[in-house]
Amino acid sequence: GLWLWRRQAVMAASEEDEEEKELRQRFMAPPVSGLRELRRRRRELRTRMELLIMETQAEVCRALAALDPGAAFAVDTWERKEGGGGISCVLQDGEVFEKAGVNVSVVFGHLSEEAARQMRSRGKSLKAKDGKLPFCAMGVSSVIHPKNPHIPTMHFNYRYFEIEEADGTKQWWFGGGTDLTPTYLNEEDAVHFHKTLKEACDKHDLKLYPKYKKWCDDYFFIEHRGERRGIGGIFFDDVDSPSKEEVFQFVKSCAKAVVPCYIPIVKRHCHDSFTPEEKLWQQLRRGRYVEFNLVYDRGTKFGLLTPGSRIESILMSLPLTARWEYMHTPPESSKEAEILEVLRNPKDWVH
Amino acid sequence: GLWLWRRQAVMAASEEDEEEKELRQRFMAPPVSGLRELRRRRRELRTRMELLIMETQAEVCRALAALDPGAAFAVDTWERKEGGGGISCVLQDGEVFEKAGVNVSVVFGHLSEEAARQMRSRGKSLKAKDGKLPFCAMGVSSVIHPKNPHIPTMHFNYRYFEIEEADGTKQWWFGGGTDLTPTYLNEEDAVHFHKTLKEACDKHDLKLYPKYKKWCDDYFFIEHRGERRGIGGIFFDDVDSPSKEEVFQFVKSCAKAVVPCYIPIVKRHCHDSFTPEEKLWQQLRRGRYVEFNLVYDRGTKFGLLTPGSRIESILMSLPLTARWEYMHTPPESSKEAEILEVLRNPKDWVH
Repeated sequence: GLWLWRRQAVMAASEEDEEEKELRQRFMAPPVSGLRELRRRRRELRTRMELLIMETQAEVCRALAALDPGAAFAVDTWERKEGGGGISCVLQDGEVFEKAGVNVSVVFGHLSEEAARQMRSRGKSLKAKDGKLPFCAMGVSSVIHPKNPHIPTMHFNYRYFEIEEADGTKQWWFGGGTDLTPTYLNEEDAVHFHKTLKEACDKHDLKLYPKYKKWCDDYFFIEHRGERRGIGGIFFDDVDSPSKEEVFQFVKSCAKAVVPCYIPIVKRHCHDSFTPEEKLWQQLRRGRYVEFNLVYDRGTKFGLLTPGSRIESILMSLPLTARWEYMHTPPESSKEAEILEVLRNPKDWVH
Repeated sequence: GLWLWRRQAVMAASEEDEEEKELRQRFMAPPVSGLRELRRRRRELRTRMELLIMETQAEVCRALAALDPGAAFAVDTWERKEGGGGISCVLQDGEVFEKAGVNVSVVFGHLSEEAARQMRSRGKSLKAKDGKLPFCAMGVSSVIHPKNPHIPTMHFNYRYFEIEEADGTKQWWFGGGTDLTPTYLNEEDAVHFHKTLKEACDKHDLKLYPKYKKWCDDYFFIEHRGERRGIGGIFFDDVDSPSKEEVFQFVKSCAKAVVPCYIPIVKRHCHDSFTPEEKLWQQLRRGRYVEFNLVYDRGTKFGLLTPGSRIESILMSLPLTARWEYMHTPPESSKEAEILEVLRNPKDWVH
C-alpha cells in the first residue's frame, strides 16, 4: 500500500529527508511530478496512477535484475521541453536478458484537436479552446527480450490520459495490456500466462478477460504477414467506464499481475539449452517484432510523430538484434511451424 | 542495344526457339508480359521500359555475382492474382554480400481513386470511370547489403506508371533513383558515386543532377533521428516532362549508370580488413536502414498495403541482420561521428 502518503502532513525537515531516502529505495528515481506536488494532490487519480506506474517499474526491474545477477539496470531520467518527463530503465546484453527496458513517462501540455483525436483510438472529437487542449498522459511500458530462445519476449503497458475541453469538462481514459511473444510454443507457459491475466481481470468483471483477450489478438496483427506478433494476452484502450475508481482498480490488478505472469516462465527456462538453429529462428521472429512495432503499433507511430518525444525511450522496444531472410519457410510439422500455426490462428488458452 | 527486336518479324519456329534460348541467356527469367506480347507491341514505351528493367536486372546480378564467385542468385518468378507478376533475384549470405536483391515487377489491373492518388506523390486527383482506374506499373528495384563494413549499401529503383482516366486520356510518369549508404565515410567513394550519377544526368539536362540530388537528401530523411539514411545520390518521382521519350532516355542513362556507380567501390574495398567494432557499427546503421524503410519509405508502405503484392519481394530490402542499442552515441571525432555528421548535414560531392 501507499502507506507513505498516509503520514501526518506536517513533518520535521529531518523526517522529510528520511522520507525522500525511503522513496529512492522504493522507486527507480524520484517521480517526474516531484514529491511535494504529489503530496499536495495525493487524493487525485493522476497522483495515484503516477505512484502505481512508478511502483510497477521498480517491481519489474527488481524481479528481472534478481534473475540476471551480473547485469544492472541503467536508469536515465529525462525532461520534455514541452512539459513533463520520464524515467527509462534499461538492462542491455545481460546473461539472461538481451535487452530489457521499463519506461515511465508523465507528460503534459497542450494538444491540437487533430493530435487529440489520434490519441483516442475511437477517434472521438474533442472541443478545444483556441484550438488547444490541455492534456496529461502517463504510463509505464516495457519490453523484455531474453537471450534464450526458450524464454518468450514479454511486453506490457499501462497508461492514463486526461484532456480538458473548452467548457472545462475533463475527458479521461485508461489503456493497457500485457502480452507474450514466444519463439517456440510451450503450452504450459501459455496457459500460465493467460490464466494469471484472467484471474486479474475476473476480480473486476468476468466479461473483461474474453473481451480484452480478443482485442489483444486483433491489435497485435501483422497484416502483411497474416500473423499475430505473439500468443497474445490482454489489450484494451479508451476505457472510461464504469467509473474512474473502478477502472483504476482494474488497471492496478493488471499491473500487479505482470511479475506473477512472466517471472515463473523466465525461471522455468533460463537454464534450458538451445541450438544455433533455435537461436536463428528467434532472430527471425525478432525481425517480425520490429515489423509490427515500426509499421503498425499505434504507440510507436504516435510517439515518433510527437514533437519533443524521447526517441530512445520509444525505440527501446526494439530487440538488440534481428534478422530477415528472404523466403524463409520452416519445414512442415517442425517446432517452428507449430508456433506459426498459433500465430495465424490464435487459440483460447483458458476457459 | 535491343538488337533482338530489330530482326524480321516473321521467323521459322526453330528461329523462335533460338531466340527464346538467347533471351534466357540475356535475362534472369522470361519477361512477365511474355515474348510474343512484347514482340507484338515492340514500339510502345511500356515494352521498351520492360526490356530496360529486365536488362538492368541481369546486368546488375551478373556484375555482383562475378564479385562473389561462391554464391549464386536464386531466381523466383511470381504471378500476381490481380494481374502481372515479377522476377526476384536474391543472393543471400555470400562471401562478399550479406544480402543482395534485384527485383523486377510488372503489374496491372484497376486502382481505386484513393490508391491512385497515393501512388502519385503530388497527389494529383484522377477521374475514374465507375470508381476504377486501369493502371500499369513496372519497375526494377534493388538493395545490396555487403558483409564488409567498408563496402557501402546501395539501393536503386527505376519505375514507370500509366493510368487511364475516365475520358480515355493516359497519364504516365517515371520515378527512380540510386543512392548510397556507407557505414563509414570514404570521400573518394562518395565523389565517384555522385560524379557518375551527375554525368548520367548531365547528358540530358544540367539542371537534373542538382535538383534530384537535393530531392534524394530530402526523401531519405529519418525524421525522428534527424539523420538521412545515407549520403544520397539522386531521387525523382512523378516526372512527366519534357516528353515520354526524353524521360525514358534519361531513365535509361540512370539505369545504365548503376554498375559503373557501384561496382568499382565494391572492388576497391572487398579485401579491406575490419574489426569487430566496425562490424558492430555497421549493424547499428543497418537498424537505421530498417527504421527508414518500415516507417517512411513510400514504396514499402504502399507495397505492404496493396492487396496481392508480394511481401517477400518488398521486404527483400531489409538487411539480413540489424541491431538496436539503447542510447548508443559514438565518441566525438571518431570515424563513427564523422559519418553521422554527414548524415545530419548533407554535403555537395561534385560541382
